[in-house]
Amino acid sequence: MKRVIILLITGLFYFSLHAQQDIFQPKGIESPVVNADHTVTFRIKAPGADKVLVTGNLNSEKAFANISYEMQKGDNGVWSFTTQVLPSELYRYHFEVDSVRTIDPGNAHVIRDVANISNIFIIEDGTADLYKVQQVPHGTVSFRWYESKGNDKNRRLTVYTPAGYENNKDKYPVLYLLHGVGGDEEAWLGTGRSAQIFDNLISQGKMVPAIVVMTNGNVVQEAAPGKGSNGLERPNFMLPHTMDGKFEETFQDVMDFVESNYRTINKKEGRAIAGLSMGGYHTAYISMNYPNKFDYIGLFSAAIGVRPGPTPPSYIYKDVDQKLTQQKENGFKLYWIGIGSDDVLIYKGMQNFRKNLDEKGFKYEYLETEGGHTWNNWRNYLSVFSQKLFK
Amino acid sequence: MKRVIILLITGLFYFSLHAQQDIFQPKGIESPVVNADHTVTFRIKAPGADKVLVTGNLNSEKAFANISYEMQKGDNGVWSFTTQVLPSELYRYHFEVDSVRTIDPGNAHVIRDVANISNIFIIEDGTADLYKVQQVPHGTVSFRWYESKGNDKNRRLTVYTPAGYENNKDKYPVLYLLHGVGGDEEAWLGTGRSAQIFDNLISQGKMVPAIVVMTNGNVVQEAAPGKGSNGLERPNFMLPHTMDGKFEETFQDVMDFVESNYRTINKKEGRAIAGLSMGGYHTAYISMNYPNKFDYIGLFSAAIGVRPGPTPPSYIYKDVDQKLTQQKENGFKLYWIGIGSDDVLIYKGMQNFRKNLDEKGFKYEYLETEGGHTWNNWRNYLSVFSQKLFK
Repeated sequence: MKRVIILLITGLFYFSLHAQQDIFQPKGIESPVVNADHTVTFRIKAPGADKVLVTGNLNSEKAFANISYEMQKGDNGVWSFTTQVLPSELYRYHFEVDSVRTIDPGNAHVIRDVANISNIFIIEDGTADLYKVQQVPHGTVSFRWYESKGNDKNRRLTVYTPAGYENNKDKYPVLYLLHGVGGDEEAWLGTGRSAQIFDNLISQGKMVPAIVVMTNGNVVQEAAPGKGSNGLERPNFMLPHTMDGKFEETFQDVMDFVESNYRTINKKEGRAIAGLSMGGYHTAYISMNYPNKFDYIGLFSAAIGVRPGPTPPSYIYKDVDQKLTQQKENGFKLYWIGIGSDDVLIYKGMQNFRKNLDEKGFKYEYLETEGGHTWNNWRNYLSVFSQKLFK
Repeated sequence: MKRVIILLITGLFYFSLHAQQDIFQPKGIESPVVNADHTVTFRIKAPGADKVLVTGNLNSEKAFANISYEMQKGDNGVWSFTTQVLPSELYRYHFEVDSVRTIDPGNAHVIRDVANISNIFIIEDGTADLYKVQQVPHGTVSFRWYESKGNDKNRRLTVYTPAGYENNKDKYPVLYLLHGVGGDEEAWLGTGRSAQIFDNLISQGKMVPAIVVMTNGNVVQEAAPGKGSNGLERPNFMLPHTMDGKFEETFQDVMDFVESNYRTINKKEGRAIAGLSMGGYHTAYISMNYPNKFDYIGLFSAAIGVRPGPTPPSYIYKDVDQKLTQQKENGFKLYWIGIGSDDVLIYKGMQNFRKNLDEKGFKYEYLETEGGHTWNNWRNYLSVFSQKLFK
């Protein structure tokens, strides 16, 4: 048997000589490098290029704003750029090499947002410590399929169960967390860093342990692009039937699945619903159309006053004033609205919506932050909102 | 309220004008296009480039072999290339624009293999139909954390439970499925398409429904790069303590977790273990060091005869002849070995290992296929092996 354990000093590295093997080819260029002072250095080898940009939310003043910087060509065709000191955040970026969009070949960490793939990195010691995987007990993340009778298909959703869920018999409250236009059941988990936010807040005792259900709000899809039987389809920004009432009409299918598959507190005080952008719009309509079901409602940059085309004929959008009045009379523990002051399209619609709520004496908490329609804000809103639930 | 639902004909598309919003910018170039005849056309806009390559396992003769093709520059700076007819497979590729490696900006579907990000596409109507999400009942995929006392850390693993698992009280057999060097608990799920293979084989009645546990064999890691508390670390091909016995020594932690958290058949006939490359090496040593625990053992391109440096001092690697003889005497239902005839490094070691088995009269099934140390082979081996389990 000793002969079997052949000592090959060249070992597995030898693989890289063989084009027919699936192997790792080591990279020479380190990028990005987060420096000790929280500046960040990007590098890419592009000897033949005339102009290389790094583009991302890399603005030291306003971490939400996309900005492009020209990189400088150095020795051996390696281009580089070092940012100013960046505040603690999760950052997204890509390179543009002679106008060709590319990811950083030195950075294996990417996320998809609709059809774009970008690299990410984290600056710690602040806000983004909530977005980082820390050495704390971790919840379970599951991708499950439920039967949506209302949509005549099996559909995929993401479920976060907090650490310990599997090892006790307790019932848990549920937060339904909805994505925006172009997103899917993976959006909050990816760019939204939801599992990290929950792990960290729960371990710090700042959030009541809850089951979180991240749905797919595009009823024409079974699942996120590539995860359904449509194959490796091209992600679309605007899908049909995303804001026509169909998702809200069939939301009971989701709740039925969750409440029969998990140990849930099946009462109003055990249910929360929140969403970003289109998901905030869905949240507002679901919470008013399913009376007395939700004690906690969160609208994050909700697209409540924005829709292309006329109001769809669904019952979901009828008698809105009456439904809001009923919702107010039924009562709830928290109706929370967050929006960025630079959110150019959403902002005005939300102020009109607030005016309507105010006229009805409908109570809500309102947080206006810097920035626009960005994941920086949505991660922040989720962090703030989650701490107010089920208490 | 009608005023609240403002009709903005420009609607959400208007977003794209605003740099501070996280938005989708529509792409003009469609790529890749799988043509009706199973040729594939790639396109990328790179007006300033001198040379653009598409590189992948795009060889029409041998789907496992990486090959680069020069693309042709056409109108408007769009480069394109159309392959020959490709056999049904899952393909991986990337572009090289003036020697800069980039993903296809038209294709949002990417996978990470160690530190490289590549695009993927599927050619249907054959082998790859097993790798595609079909309209069949889908199992649940969960990322869970278990306490590895032997490694003094919490560690992440991936669990596939077959469709229906949550809705009955049955006990299920378990397949432990191990990755290769540079991989992690996400490797089989990603490039390996394991969940699709199981969904499809089970729905066709060709595989006995089983729980599948995909571990992380790198004991220095808590989790795949980016999923542990090391942050968005750079993936490494060779990590310390990957083939020194530590993973095998602490495998009982995994089994204890699985058998106390799932409804498992806790008998030899209810347990299988298999792995690719390093995971095949782990599989061989685990199956011989945990006597009478596994009735089904699968070595896929197992790196049993390959290791850099001397044999580590772990008890795992001692008395191997005696342990193999004991394994033979204890008996098992299947010892399955698959290898590619072009697998340059692994091949010789495996033949030596087989010789040793043959000398002992140790029975095994042996499948030698075309190709090398590639995911094409491993997906195929998994498909073949899975159909032989628990019957």
